[in-house]
Amino acid sequence: MKLVTFEKQAGELRLGAWHGEAGAARDPAQGGVIVDLAAAAEASGATQDVPALASAIALLRAGEAGQDAALQALRFAQERGIDGTQWSVAPSAVRLRAPIPRPGKVLALAGNYAAHRAEGGVKSPLAEKALPEVFCKPATAVIGHGEAIQIPGLPVATVDYEGELGVVIGRPCRRVAQEDALSYVGGYVCANDVSGRKLDPGFERDPDILDRAKFFDWLIGKWPDTFCPLGPWLVTADEIPDPMALKLVTRVNGEQRQETITGEMIHTIARTIAWCSSLMTLEPGDVIAMGTPAGVGSARGVFLQPGDVVEVEIERIGVLRNPVEAAAQ
Amino acid sequence: MKLVTFEKQAGELRLGAWHGEAGAARDPAQGGVIVDLAAAAEASGATQDVPALASAIALLRAGEAGQDAALQALRFAQERGIDGTQWSVAPSAVRLRAPIPRPGKVLALAGNYAAHRAEGGVKSPLAEKALPEVFCKPATAVIGHGEAIQIPGLPVATVDYEGELGVVIGRPCRRVAQEDALSYVGGYVCANDVSGRKLDPGFERDPDILDRAKFFDWLIGKWPDTFCPLGPWLVTADEIPDPMALKLVTRVNGEQRQETITGEMIHTIARTIAWCSSLMTLEPGDVIAMGTPAGVGSARGVFLQPGDVVEVEIERIGVLRNPVEAAAQ
Repeated sequence: MKLVTFEKQAGELRLGAWHGEAGAARDPAQGGVIVDLAAAAEASGATQDVPALASAIALLRAGEAGQDAALQALRFAQERGIDGTQWSVAPSAVRLRAPIPRPGKVLALAGNYAAHRAEGGVKSPLAEKALPEVFCKPATAVIGHGEAIQIPGLPVATVDYEGELGVVIGRPCRRVAQEDALSYVGGYVCANDVSGRKLDPGFERDPDILDRAKFFDWLIGKWPDTFCPLGPWLVTADEIPDPMALKLVTRVNGEQRQETITGEMIHTIARTIAWCSSLMTLEPGDVIAMGTPAGVGSARGVFLQPGDVVEVEIERIGVLRNPVEAAAQ
Repeated sequence: MKLVTFEKQAGELRLGAWHGEAGAARDPAQGGVIVDLAAAAEASGATQDVPALASAIALLRAGEAGQDAALQALRFAQERGIDGTQWSVAPSAVRLRAPIPRPGKVLALAGNYAAHRAEGGVKSPLAEKALPEVFCKPATAVIGHGEAIQIPGLPVATVDYEGELGVVIGRPCRRVAQEDALSYVGGYVCANDVSGRKLDPGFERDPDILDRAKFFDWLIGKWPDTFCPLGPWLVTADEIPDPMALKLVTRVNGEQRQETITGEMIHTIARTIAWCSSLMTLEPGDVIAMGTPAGVGSARGVFLQPGDVVEVEIERIGVLRNPVEAAAQ
């Protein structure tokens, strides 16, 4: 199922399932229709299912019952007809939001593709037992398909894209074994780990807090509002039999900049979930962005500008497209 | 007002105002009574106020109307009597939770007291225009007064306390000026930035991701479940005329380990809010832990053990007390 979060009226978030032809299935702008799941459940008389269909996180928290409720609502809509009903909306008539508009946590991986490590000037070989290197992005950075990446201006000097596979946790997990880890995944999204590459030199960092100053810049550069596009929808895990065998492409203004197969990752999804869950509880709706392949703009000194359009496309998931604009000051 | 979040029945979170004698006002275990604000509003006929009194974040989001609703509910309870009514509960009869059980963001400052920098081996003088150095803790780390700090075991080798003043954002803010910043504060809490000081040496870090390996350890050491006690309540900003003039003490098993005046901070609360809001939107319920003074355990090689009890006491706020136990493996 392709779960979308949309605003029918401003501020009112609804959960839908995208329904359409295979050809349009990569891009909500190309057609299809959204089934409003709670509206369909209500029309079918399954009012007890409505709370689990209030949001993608509610659905994930409800476990199998949530998935069943969504499938039944969708089946009801398919049987009764979709177009022109009270439970259908055209993607063009609504504002899409991120499939998980406010994740409890957004974790992201650094240096998880060898070619990206190389373009970043990393020279030493990877230690055999090295661990995934994880950092956090705040939930206020999350935006959805079609929403604008805003170049914040000071203190961030330059802004770059990073196309990534986003893993959405489906069930609470703590200290899970690598071999069980994928069973905790609720689904997948395209993610763009938008990154401010450095602070404006007018901002002086604290030399005492390391030699780590550059590193701190790198961390806070991941935090500005709009720096975490997720979408266009959440594809449930049952539709992605092998998440380590997906083609990922990033384009800027139609020009291909990144291309990989997710299998090129150094740390697998399963290993990463196992590691993160050894540190803390992962919860339904938490997102892990699995790291970016080679081809980021900073490797050749080219950064995002207002007017650019960035696309992250992942096989079996779809296209996440975001225009770039300057933030209001 | 002292806003508490409590569980009357397991899993049902309610918002209350602690009411009691001045002598007991530092510690919910020493007496007083909790007024269940939504119950009091309902009993008074102000049912329109109930949604704003559903949680501390709901109250903050409702702005002045939220604060007014809480004050009216409290006044109603005071006029009608508190003890033994349907809107009162004894602190000992409920489980206190963190005043903000799931903040949207928890930010924390590194190296914000000169004496703590010195005990950490930092030698160079602070640059005049240096910026606050901020990191994130996940919301899954948050616990309340009386809940146990759990020593996670592997991969974390040693666990330490860090008593800190916690600032709770009251109104959304983005790019606020330092001189306006304090008007965005909703209140204050005692915070303990519990910290895993290093990874167990059996876990090998990625040498490519820096010389920064130690730093990464330091970051993820801040993330485990239970590593962010907040409480015992949220004291609203109107009760703290000068948050930069509060005495802060940390004790372990009754022995004083840290003592400072918040005015010893290097970066003030106002400067820190201005800086963080230059990076991203701060929202009602977001917490900023303002950094710890000298006296952490790691400076003398002593770490927390199961059976210890840690207290962070801040003048005008109260005592945040947490026992320490080993996490279930």
